[in-house]
Amino acid sequence: MKKYLLTPGPTELPPRVLLAMAHPIIHHRAPEFLPVLEQAREGLKWLFKTKNEVLILASSGTGAMEGAVTNFLSKGDKAIAVNSGKFGERWAQICKAYGVDADVINVEWGQAVEPGKIKDELKKQPDTKAVYLQATETSTGVVHPIKEIAKIVHDNSNALVVVDGITGVGVFELPMDEWGIDILLTGSQKALMLPPGLAFIGISDRAWKFAETSNLPKYYFNFSKELKNIVKNQTAYTPAISLITGLGESLKMMKEEGLENVYKRHAMLADATRNGVKAMGLKLYAPKSPSNSLTAVLSPEGIDSGKIISSLEKDFGIRVANGQDQAKGKIFRIAHMGYYDKSDILFALASLEIVLNKLGYRVEPGAGVGAAEKVLV
Amino acid sequence: MKKYLLTPGPTELPPRVLLAMAHPIIHHRAPEFLPVLEQAREGLKWLFKTKNEVLILASSGTGAMEGAVTNFLSKGDKAIAVNSGKFGERWAQICKAYGVDADVINVEWGQAVEPGKIKDELKKQPDTKAVYLQATETSTGVVHPIKEIAKIVHDNSNALVVVDGITGVGVFELPMDEWGIDILLTGSQKALMLPPGLAFIGISDRAWKFAETSNLPKYYFNFSKELKNIVKNQTAYTPAISLITGLGESLKMMKEEGLENVYKRHAMLADATRNGVKAMGLKLYAPKSPSNSLTAVLSPEGIDSGKIISSLEKDFGIRVANGQDQAKGKIFRIAHMGYYDKSDILFALASLEIVLNKLGYRVEPGAGVGAAEKVLV
Repeated sequence: MKKYLLTPGPTELPPRVLLAMAHPIIHHRAPEFLPVLEQAREGLKWLFKTKNEVLILASSGTGAMEGAVTNFLSKGDKAIAVNSGKFGERWAQICKAYGVDADVINVEWGQAVEPGKIKDELKKQPDTKAVYLQATETSTGVVHPIKEIAKIVHDNSNALVVVDGITGVGVFELPMDEWGIDILLTGSQKALMLPPGLAFIGISDRAWKFAETSNLPKYYFNFSKELKNIVKNQTAYTPAISLITGLGESLKMMKEEGLENVYKRHAMLADATRNGVKAMGLKLYAPKSPSNSLTAVLSPEGIDSGKIISSLEKDFGIRVANGQDQAKGKIFRIAHMGYYDKSDILFALASLEIVLNKLGYRVEPGAGVGAAEKVLV
Repeated sequence: MKKYLLTPGPTELPPRVLLAMAHPIIHHRAPEFLPVLEQAREGLKWLFKTKNEVLILASSGTGAMEGAVTNFLSKGDKAIAVNSGKFGERWAQICKAYGVDADVINVEWGQAVEPGKIKDELKKQPDTKAVYLQATETSTGVVHPIKEIAKIVHDNSNALVVVDGITGVGVFELPMDEWGIDILLTGSQKALMLPPGLAFIGISDRAWKFAETSNLPKYYFNFSKELKNIVKNQTAYTPAISLITGLGESLKMMKEEGLENVYKRHAMLADATRNGVKAMGLKLYAPKSPSNSLTAVLSPEGIDSGKIISSLEKDFGIRVANGQDQAKGKIFRIAHMGYYDKSDILFALASLEIVLNKLGYRVEPGAGVGAAEKVLV
């Protein structure tokens, strides 16, 4: 059976990227690698919309998150961590591991954080050094109002705005410099259409100032050392060469499409997916603020979402994701970030209709697909 | 021009590995990935000769080195770090970054550490918690007597024996359990014939005991968390899926050849290389204890090694490595670990003869190749 991956990471890889990575490896100090790295750096700046260097790390996104704490803060510093799901939790855990005193704003799963709550927290804790949050919380499919939050943080404090854009960068607008995002990070296996194994992190001039006085221990994720190297078109440690070669190709594809078109395509596919599932009578898990990265859908009353997921897999070769922790069995998550097009959504929705009917939840065949068609132009 | 990579990492990739990694990506929680990861785990235990799990990290080898300090020691602990080159320095740097009090045994570049010096140091510092060293120091091409050192450390202390086997594992015998190596780590881009981006670390029962009381901060490189996951056939964070798929293939190749044969092939190629360069009148940089991983050769008097390297590259498409830091311009390093065979050595030596003559250092054409032929059976 043909296999389709509609999970929020890893995402499908374009054949062009697979072929680029299948070339014989080149040495990272060889003249042939220099333009590869240089183009990747230039492409990442273009993608992050920043004038500063975007560091390239051989790690998953979590490594970049750790570095986003350890390179800028000091022991005992106060921070705010927004926890609206599985990945929000991670900020608080990292702060705790390194002795940063993070005040956690707990947000109900499926909800976006209210910017006012961050403002209140900053007033209570005026010496906050950083506000940590996600652009999209992958576990719930919610998108947070980053532009508004960045403004509030800067208007009310000197804290850094640190955004985990792992499922955001390359999906929708997150212009670092314009919005005042001090630290923005992402991973390779999302909108960048690469295998997991690389993380990328953009750092503002303000944040680099914080780095000068940070006293938390770090070695592998030492960003000052990485910066010194990347401006010389090198990395501090052996880079993940084949993945960076793939990155060159995926950035090229994004440039060919145009970044605004990439965003529009994601918005359209997300819109179609939401229209489709709603026309089937299903409810979104994050209805007020759904992300264009993935759509989290509540399973119909009485049906474990695991059953929908395994039927989609068994009958149609489609892999979507279950909920995590408290949402496990209650939701399924259809991702549409990266190498996806209209065909994927139409096929996934049609398959979902068949599966739901099979599991005893009645859907008029074609109802969801029909609703999606209206926005797929 | 055909290109040949004879550098000590990255090393050449077998077409079988490239093809395995070029398959469409599979999700790390999908049933199809479970046997891939399971076979990789089993293969790594076989390669490390250990009954314990070998953790798989998405990072370069340096990340595993950092974790080999932060997961087992506590702030202010005493350690011994053997510094015999560029990579030995790294142990001391990591200890310093995390507040471990490392006593450094400085060894002249190109020399192996005398086990007696470690014994003396342990006597001076009986509360030493760990001895950090390399199996092979990649910057000088020396191999340290690990078996003897492990015995001395255990006979004279309760310290952990921690071996960076980045350019050793899969090249020559380093049987963890039998020799009492408490922690052994390696990277993907050496004898394992993979692109860089993965690190592997085996941990003894004794070392896991140390982990229970370690108080150094860690998050991404939290080995207890990785262990909890790997026994469930998972990783703590998104693994570098495509590289692990490649790992499955490279381990399969090593099993087909047989581990003893892999070691024999490396010994033979190293022997041939050493014979060849010596027959050209050249001197080894580590003559007393040369590693089978790579051969570091002193450039003839008056010839900058960079000239030899650039001629090999320009005229024959062969990339070998220069010396690092104090050895830069003085040596060149020919690697023969991983996907290399007799043909590579014969061709490299012949090319070297031509290049040396061109640069004004007289070599009888065929002298080096002829000497190599005698051991290439």
